[in-house]
Amino acid sequence: MDVLGSGRRTFASDNWSGVHPEVLEALARANDGGHTPSYGADPWTAEAQRLLAEHFGPGTEAYFAFNGTGANVVGLQSLLRPFEAVICARGAHIDVDECGAPERFLGSKLLPVDTPDGKLTPESAATALGGIGDEHHVQARVVSLTQSTEVGTVYSVDEVAALAEWAHGHDLFVHLDGARLANAAAALGVDFGAFGQSAGVDVVSFGGTKNGALGAEAVITFRPALETRLPFIRKQAMQLSSKMRFVSAQFVALLTDDLWLRSARHANAMALRLGVGASAVPGVSLAQPVQANGVFAFLPPAVTTALQAEYPFYVWDESTGVVRWMASFDTTEADVDGFVTRLGALMEGVG
Amino acid sequence: MDVLGSGRRTFASDNWSGVHPEVLEALARANDGGHTPSYGADPWTAEAQRLLAEHFGPGTEAYFAFNGTGANVVGLQSLLRPFEAVICARGAHIDVDECGAPERFLGSKLLPVDTPDGKLTPESAATALGGIGDEHHVQARVVSLTQSTEVGTVYSVDEVAALAEWAHGHDLFVHLDGARLANAAAALGVDFGAFGQSAGVDVVSFGGTKNGALGAEAVITFRPALETRLPFIRKQAMQLSSKMRFVSAQFVALLTDDLWLRSARHANAMALRLGVGASAVPGVSLAQPVQANGVFAFLPPAVTTALQAEYPFYVWDESTGVVRWMASFDTTEADVDGFVTRLGALMEGVG
Amino acid sequence: MDVLGSGRRTFASDNWSGVHPEVLEALARANDGGHTPSYGADPWTAEAQRLLAEHFGPGTEAYFAFNGTGANVVGLQSLLRPFEAVICARGAHIDVDECGAPERFLGSKLLPVDTPDGKLTPESAATALGGIGDEHHVQARVVSLTQSTEVGTVYSVDEVAALAEWAHGHDLFVHLDGARLANAAAALGVDFGAFGQSAGVDVVSFGGTKNGALGAEAVITFRPALETRLPFIRKQAMQLSSKMRFVSAQFVALLTDDLWLRSARHANAMALRLGVGASAVPGVSLAQPVQANGVFAFLPPAVTTALQAEYPFYVWDESTGVVRWMASFDTTEADVDGFVTRLGALMEGVG
Amino acid sequence: MDVLGSGRRTFASDNWSGVHPEVLEALARANDGGHTPSYGADPWTAEAQRLLAEHFGPGTEAYFAFNGTGANVVGLQSLLRPFEAVICARGAHIDVDECGAPERFLGSKLLPVDTPDGKLTPESAATALGGIGDEHHVQARVVSLTQSTEVGTVYSVDEVAALAEWAHGHDLFVHLDGARLANAAAALGVDFGAFGQSAGVDVVSFGGTKNGALGAEAVITFRPALETRLPFIRKQAMQLSSKMRFVSAQFVALLTDDLWLRSARHANAMALRLGVGASAVPGVSLAQPVQANGVFAFLPPAVTTALQAEYPFYVWDESTGVVRWMASFDTTEADVDGFVTRLGALMEGVG
Repeated sequence: MDVLGSGRRTFASDNWSGVHPEVLEALARANDGGHTPSYGADPWTAEAQRLLAEHFGPGTEAYFAFNGTGANVVGLQSLLRPFEAVICARGAHIDVDECGAPERFLGSKLLPVDTPDGKLTPESAATALGGIGDEHHVQARVVSLTQSTEVGTVYSVDEVAALAEWAHGHDLFVHLDGARLANAAAALGVDFGAFGQSAGVDVVSFGGTKNGALGAEAVITFRPALETRLPFIRKQAMQLSSKMRFVSAQFVALLTDDLWLRSARHANAMALRLGVGASAVPGVSLAQPVQANGVFAFLPPAVTTALQAEYPFYVWDESTGVVRWMASFDTTEADVDGFVTRLGALMEGVG
Repeated sequence: MDVLGSGRRTFASDNWSGVHPEVLEALARANDGGHTPSYGADPWTAEAQRLLAEHFGPGTEAYFAFNGTGANVVGLQSLLRPFEAVICARGAHIDVDECGAPERFLGSKLLPVDTPDGKLTPESAATALGGIGDEHHVQARVVSLTQSTEVGTVYSVDEVAALAEWAHGHDLFVHLDGARLANAAAALGVDFGAFGQSAGVDVVSFGGTKNGALGAEAVITFRPALETRLPFIRKQAMQLSSKMRFVSAQFVALLTDDLWLRSARHANAMALRLGVGASAVPGVSLAQPVQANGVFAFLPPAVTTALQAEYPFYVWDESTGVVRWMASFDTTEADVDGFVTRLGALMEGVG
Repeated sequence: MDVLGSGRRTFASDNWSGVHPEVLEALARANDGGHTPSYGADPWTAEAQRLLAEHFGPGTEAYFAFNGTGANVVGLQSLLRPFEAVICARGAHIDVDECGAPERFLGSKLLPVDTPDGKLTPESAATALGGIGDEHHVQARVVSLTQSTEVGTVYSVDEVAALAEWAHGHDLFVHLDGARLANAAAALGVDFGAFGQSAGVDVVSFGGTKNGALGAEAVITFRPALETRLPFIRKQAMQLSSKMRFVSAQFVALLTDDLWLRSARHANAMALRLGVGASAVPGVSLAQPVQANGVFAFLPPAVTTALQAEYPFYVWDESTGVVRWMASFDTTEADVDGFVTRLGALMEGVG
Repeated sequence: MDVLGSGRRTFASDNWSGVHPEVLEALARANDGGHTPSYGADPWTAEAQRLLAEHFGPGTEAYFAFNGTGANVVGLQSLLRPFEAVICARGAHIDVDECGAPERFLGSKLLPVDTPDGKLTPESAATALGGIGDEHHVQARVVSLTQSTEVGTVYSVDEVAALAEWAHGHDLFVHLDGARLANAAAALGVDFGAFGQSAGVDVVSFGGTKNGALGAEAVITFRPALETRLPFIRKQAMQLSSKMRFVSAQFVALLTDDLWLRSARHANAMALRLGVGASAVPGVSLAQPVQANGVFAFLPPAVTTALQAEYPFYVWDESTGVVRWMASFDTTEADVDGFVTRLGALMEGVG
């Protein structure tokens, strides 16, 4: 029933892949427990929270959610009143891929900022800071960054810390959309916990789904004042699972024997192999450096179309011809090599 | 790891039970598919939609959601503008158990109506119809009924049809919260599809989770005009799953070999056994007839406390001493009989 | 161009009357000022705020709004997060006369409580306090009372203070909808400022419009923490006037030479005269004691219809036949006496 | 009490001026009417609606509101569902001057587009049209243009009609923010009604306040389907005046003896005189052509500061040094000439 009818894998998205077998096994084990309290008062949830606190440090609180949009909105809501606004990179997931859920649920305005590489800096974020104290203008209150970014780039720990220091100095909170935080951490060779309170981040959306889970995201916070609000915000945001143990158990699996790291490291390696291979094809150049599990390349439209017919993937920017290829935990070297070979053949045709 | 430490099951809620083994197997099979398009463009979703249309009839469209609150809010949103209101039974899930998610997301007011048994009638619903055409008042636009109700009672097909006829005659839509629709249908010996368009219902929340799924609800609609809005509403309501096949596959499992019916019928039978057993205990009387998988009984507070220590369950109404016992797909006769025996012993103590 | 074509006045509502001449004169004087800063940075606004602080005491901050619904919603918003709820009397203006603006703008649920006379008590308010700490339920956070109430009754200062003490003891804020606060204060012989911080009220909607203004309401608060939010909330709630001096000047007029008191006292006296006169008519009885400027009476439907043809007024409750008659600053003794005479004649007809 | 203490007028904003005497007189006349129905069922409202329909043509419906933000939000709400979005010029009032009220109340995203002169074109608007049909993206549904624009430029009737034709061809509605529509119409020598249904505009916010009213805006629509929603939307948006006759009477005044035109024409003439005078000062150049009642000029910061000390006005763009000078109905030639003289003297100082 796979989409290519051949056992091959696509480069369309890391959510086109299925569930890591270790996650599925964890779900089955969680089911052996018979009856257990619902809504999170169960041992799997406690265990997942304990494991996350090992990474993010004492004082960490984790609230599980269904999907990335939900986790982002719940996390932002804990930091914002409706007249307050969110500075983000233009093209961030919250800006363009959530059907306006942030504006709808938060009532707040987003203030997108142009970036060359998906990464905010104190300088670029500062351009969105106008009108503070003026009742006619929304009041910037949160800087939201995405790690790794929508264009496959990665913030260093120092870059995040510098942004957070700048933000706190301007009375702004820091939200980190970590739908692919595992990939970023693996790429940098640090623990994902390095992007929490120690870097000055106030709320993290930590993504499990793209890392091999079935559907599991976590809102992580380190501020007790926020914690009192979060359960209510999550419920009102329709993100509270009744059979919560099956969400939590996914995180237990990802955090056991470093499954998160093994999967992320592998996906990153496959992306790098693809980036290296593709950029070696005459006529193909990369639009962004390959720093995590995404590859962004310039391709002639005719080649794009022909290649998509065999391997589904998305055009990132029609005006520039940039395409996006994502690697996943289950991408194989053979997948990459077959794809690059086919790309090479097609490029020869247009040469 | 079960809560009673003994393999026994509680009567706390049908969401304290785990996942039916056939559902878990379906998830594993869905994972064999390698890469498949995300967000619902996959064969499992198509199959689940096809199966639902077999029950609800031609023209049925189904949109899967994560949880019951999400399905209710998405379905209601497809029928409402913010100045329009929802008539429901006081104590309905949307009224008291969703932390105000309907008001928050819809911007709409709920108009709860007193009922003796959780069931609306045209007469009782009509009491909430004031102020139509007057700009100072919210405009009633939807009647929402719950099947089976929060107090374990069941609407007949005729009762739903009569309500729908009345509603449509007053320019109201009909929403059915079917978190336990399977139990109601099984109890009445009809297909759950009898509570859709043929009964005049406009939008159904069809619950999989309490019927043995891991977490899967469906928003069902029969009106093409609504269908154009629903995908956007679902996404904005943070209810769109990226790895959708794993939500859809749960419905495929429930709708294969009548798993939904086998589970619901069993849960109902266990509730009936419990109701019969409990009401035979001197001093115990039922607060509502047992019509689906819930039992509501009057109990002395001291017995409630002692019994809860061994078998967790919820007090439904502290002022009257009514308690709620829910049966599930995995409740056994031994569970029921052990519970009734213990109840009897405790009641003797207070006699 | 008056509605009765005769110089007579109706008893329909205190907003069917026009503007007190002293208020109109104040508007004309404010216009003599040539150019002045907009949005409230003008001397009339400063003066109105100073005058309000004379009544409500040091630390008072006042934010002017366009209408009562706006003032209520802005004031409540300063006290609430969306998952928090407002306890109010069933039938309160925020509950039934604002087209769901509170739910829409606040995202919050109202928790209406039955009362015999429109007045909450600690005991009745406490019935809405369930589910605190439970994420499935909205969290009661504000008690909103109306002074004078929608049915013409009045809270004593002690009653408000007792409610506020109870509320604060349960971690609730107190909001007072004072659309007719002037009438209540005049009736009790106290300054309207007695219903502010000294009574434990956190936010007051102080109404100018029904007291003889053209359209001017004030959100009054005494908590610096709220003040930092209020300007933004007011702007986002579309209640910020650009030519603010013309709103503020209305309050300056009402607070000069006790115009507020003269008008309220007169309206109250006319209502009392009407109440005494009407209850002396055989067959007419009052539904509520006349404590401010409203009279609520039981009337035979045929008499209601005949009387409305000559003097427009509203039926308050069709099921009981209760009608509402409101007196205003411009109601005359002759208006009242003519009305009572006509009522008497009509009642004789049904005798 | 004027801000300059000398009878002079500022160039800060057309809302720093007061009320035109003919408007004040109309308010006084409206007050002679004794009691009249509230909430718009009065003869002044009927008359104002009739007069507006004379300009905008048969089928025109007008709903009065308190301020421009309110009128914009109410009008947009009549055209939008929350997952639908509004294309506007970056820097439009709805984008940057309403504290996020559109996002808050509508739940919708704005899609601002860069323009050189505040004016959208089909080409520039089209850049915001991505993702139609894709549930991950908000769905553009309204194009909102401002006439005259925030930078003092004016759309011709043909330009508006071309935009509307393009918009309707792409299933978009057209909203026109006409806070200064009178100035634009006067500048072009056409009736303001030319920017309604005949040009393809679906909803107009027609501004009275900046044209000399005390506080009066109108939401104008030509689509019966929208009219059924507008009263409820207006009430829920807290924009329904109880003593409506005093809002409507302002429009009656503006539309009597062409007061709107006389005032707008005068303000435009004063702006032109100021533009001509200022651009004749060596070192001063205009940032935009003077087409209505606003003048935008490049000024050295030191001159700006010195000039503001005598004549308050706003810096439009700190980064470029552009300042804004607004003329009003009450601006005199002496005001302009005095200002230009002072500007000349200050510029000499920096020469």
